[in-house]
Amino acid sequence: MKKILLEESEMPTQWYNVMPDIPNGIAPPLDPLTKEPMGPEKLAHIFPMGLLEQEMSDQRWIDIPQEVQEVLHIWRPAPLIRADNLEKALGTKAKIYFKYEGVSPSGSHKTNSAVAQAYYNKREGVKRMSTETGAGQWGSALAFAAHKFGLECKVYMVRVSFDQKPYRKSMMNTYGAEIVASPSNDTAIGRQIRKEYPDTAGSLGIAISEAIEDAMGREDTKYGLGSVLNHVILHQSIIGLEAKKQLEKIGEYPDVVIGCCGGGSNAAGIMSPFITDYLEGKKIRFVGVEPASCPTLTRGTYAYDFGDVAKQTPLLYMYTLGHDFIPPGIHAGGLRYHGMSPILSAMVREKILEPISVHQLECFEAGRLFAQTEGIIPAPETCHAIRAAIIEASQDLNDPKTILFNFSGHGMLDLSSYDKFYAGDLHNYDYPEEDITNAIKNLPKV
Amino acid sequence: MKKILLEESEMPTQWYNVMPDIPNGIAPPLDPLTKEPMGPEKLAHIFPMGLLEQEMSDQRWIDIPQEVQEVLHIWRPAPLIRADNLEKALGTKAKIYFKYEGVSPSGSHKTNSAVAQAYYNKREGVKRMSTETGAGQWGSALAFAAHKFGLECKVYMVRVSFDQKPYRKSMMNTYGAEIVASPSNDTAIGRQIRKEYPDTAGSLGIAISEAIEDAMGREDTKYGLGSVLNHVILHQSIIGLEAKKQLEKIGEYPDVVIGCCGGGSNAAGIMSPFITDYLEGKKIRFVGVEPASCPTLTRGTYAYDFGDVAKQTPLLYMYTLGHDFIPPGIHAGGLRYHGMSPILSAMVREKILEPISVHQLECFEAGRLFAQTEGIIPAPETCHAIRAAIIEASQDLNDPKTILFNFSGHGMLDLSSYDKFYAGDLHNYDYPEEDITNAIKNLPKV
Repeated sequence: MKKILLEESEMPTQWYNVMPDIPNGIAPPLDPLTKEPMGPEKLAHIFPMGLLEQEMSDQRWIDIPQEVQEVLHIWRPAPLIRADNLEKALGTKAKIYFKYEGVSPSGSHKTNSAVAQAYYNKREGVKRMSTETGAGQWGSALAFAAHKFGLECKVYMVRVSFDQKPYRKSMMNTYGAEIVASPSNDTAIGRQIRKEYPDTAGSLGIAISEAIEDAMGREDTKYGLGSVLNHVILHQSIIGLEAKKQLEKIGEYPDVVIGCCGGGSNAAGIMSPFITDYLEGKKIRFVGVEPASCPTLTRGTYAYDFGDVAKQTPLLYMYTLGHDFIPPGIHAGGLRYHGMSPILSAMVREKILEPISVHQLECFEAGRLFAQTEGIIPAPETCHAIRAAIIEASQDLNDPKTILFNFSGHGMLDLSSYDKFYAGDLHNYDYPEEDITNAIKNLPKV
Repeated sequence: MKKILLEESEMPTQWYNVMPDIPNGIAPPLDPLTKEPMGPEKLAHIFPMGLLEQEMSDQRWIDIPQEVQEVLHIWRPAPLIRADNLEKALGTKAKIYFKYEGVSPSGSHKTNSAVAQAYYNKREGVKRMSTETGAGQWGSALAFAAHKFGLECKVYMVRVSFDQKPYRKSMMNTYGAEIVASPSNDTAIGRQIRKEYPDTAGSLGIAISEAIEDAMGREDTKYGLGSVLNHVILHQSIIGLEAKKQLEKIGEYPDVVIGCCGGGSNAAGIMSPFITDYLEGKKIRFVGVEPASCPTLTRGTYAYDFGDVAKQTPLLYMYTLGHDFIPPGIHAGGLRYHGMSPILSAMVREKILEPISVHQLECFEAGRLFAQTEGIIPAPETCHAIRAAIIEASQDLNDPKTILFNFSGHGMLDLSSYDKFYAGDLHNYDYPEEDITNAIKNLPKV
């Protein structure tokens, strides 16, 4: 059987919170000014209480509200698909399964959390949400979700993506959101950066600063973040919960679970419900794959750092390349982030998660092979997970291991990046050790 | 229940051939030179025998080869989805179901026939296929299918689409096809037209001429057509067969079945298995919707005509606006064709199918409403079917009728057309009666 489907009635009705499972726990966020642990009340001006409770929750299971379930039903449960054509092309005895999150309206897993975030904002009387987007997946997911719950939505989109991916703008327009290239003239930090660097291509760190400034300046507005935070990973646990149920249906259990890592939400989402099993002694491996050009988990430092350039966010204890690290303009915009989810970072610290890094060219090559064998053209971010799955399946072609990876999103709106790959215009990049060392010199003193 | 799914084991293993059902039959194709009825042997230089047998078959059920089923399993069965959010937005008591063909690798129903065509070509030793594409849906479908069966593929893409939809080229590149803008320098007819009209935007009729010339000039090459012909509609019957089974599962039967009409394959595909029921007395209506700017079924003439500009194709008995009719550059390229499937044409003649025409702007409006309510952004062609479904559901808001429409493809690669719509750059067009009358003056004498 190629596709393992679930009926709507089989969709999980609770999220799984992996936080209580992490050995030695997750260090709390710190106030950027006082460096004291930050309670939910201090964050209440930018996030609704419903999400902050989840952010700090030690409950393992949290109900998915009925209203959220109804919107998720538009595309969920998502199919689990066996990549048997890819297996044949590789000549491997490994079984490769992927959880196909590209079926969501905006084409990626991001929509899972966007719907939940829009719901909790709506419930608490918020009228408008501000956010940033890099590659555009999160921005379009939130644009859709906000519209479903009758909220206005403003998206600060990193300028380089804004220019390279015009179709993402069209999609957000279709869902009724307002989009502006970041840095923009709509915020003080945006104007300041434009003045200093008129030609800047922008960065996720800058766009986050703008979106937070926007939310802090308006009573009717709160901010939404598409990855990194615990509540986002909670919402993404539905991916792993469904995948686990689907594999059970066919009597399978993965030997290895793979996810690509930008902020960490899709990887942690698919891994969450398997981590409990691992801690109970089950033999299973977890591989997090990131770009060599933004090697947060493989070459970063485990420390408290800001999530943005303007140092407005709480300090998070995470792997980081330094909040002013600017990765090169590789074509997997969703993976160009200096930091990493505290949950995923702690999993690396505890040696539960094996981080690996791969180069851009081998990822696009993997994406093309996947498209030619399995039909679906993957997003550049997802190509990283595919590349890692191919590495796993090729280590010993006679090893009949079971591989599960998260197909986080389709590449329909990223085809210009494939064009550049075909034209030979893309290159690999490895940082000299010196650059990595320099980049963390500005880590905040805690 | 929002989504009605089928397991792979429930996918039809036979196609349904609607030809024997059509009262008073379908007139045979004529040789363009002798005007005599054309047997399969005369077409064997451009089509493989396996497809020609289907083209002329009077068998109602035809087995789907195992190899074709295996490739179809990559995405089929396709989901049937209830557009309950759209219903709510309309305030209608009607139930609207859509068959979602956007799940195929290339994003539309075209892939259903592409896979079958590539298979029969491969089986008969063909090494290479040539074809044309308008909006790009068919070209990318055949590019994918040809690659799956190890065939080379060359696509002549109407220049206006080639320029407007660069992502379709990227997709075809990904599947390993060769793409050229039509008219091209690669064929005699292409060179001739470029010489006469250096600035031409091209047309489907020209691109067909080029692709046929290509196939006729090479021993290793045959031609593939993405719509119009009987064997294409046969392959698309899988849409209706699945939809019927899915509706049965929930105890539903449609009062009306809707499809948009360009060459006719997606509409005839979803309608095929319901037509038998109709002929046996079941109360059910069929609505075919076309653009007012290319009003083949609503304002064309029922007559023998060529399928292409260069008059190389057999004469087909069909509704036509004349083979040298050039529709305006509306943004539903797949519906810009002067002719229409003989099967669908005969259904209009027999008053089984009700043809209606709609304007471009109301279609994009319908597409936006659909995206905002149901999440999925539809292709401009599909917007026509949605518009028709909205008209049906709005006639009497208290009528609890059951509407089924074919969601032929997603609009991920058509977002630039939405941009033009949002910017107010799109316009409606109605032909003066005179233009319609003039356009059919060159119909061949039979």
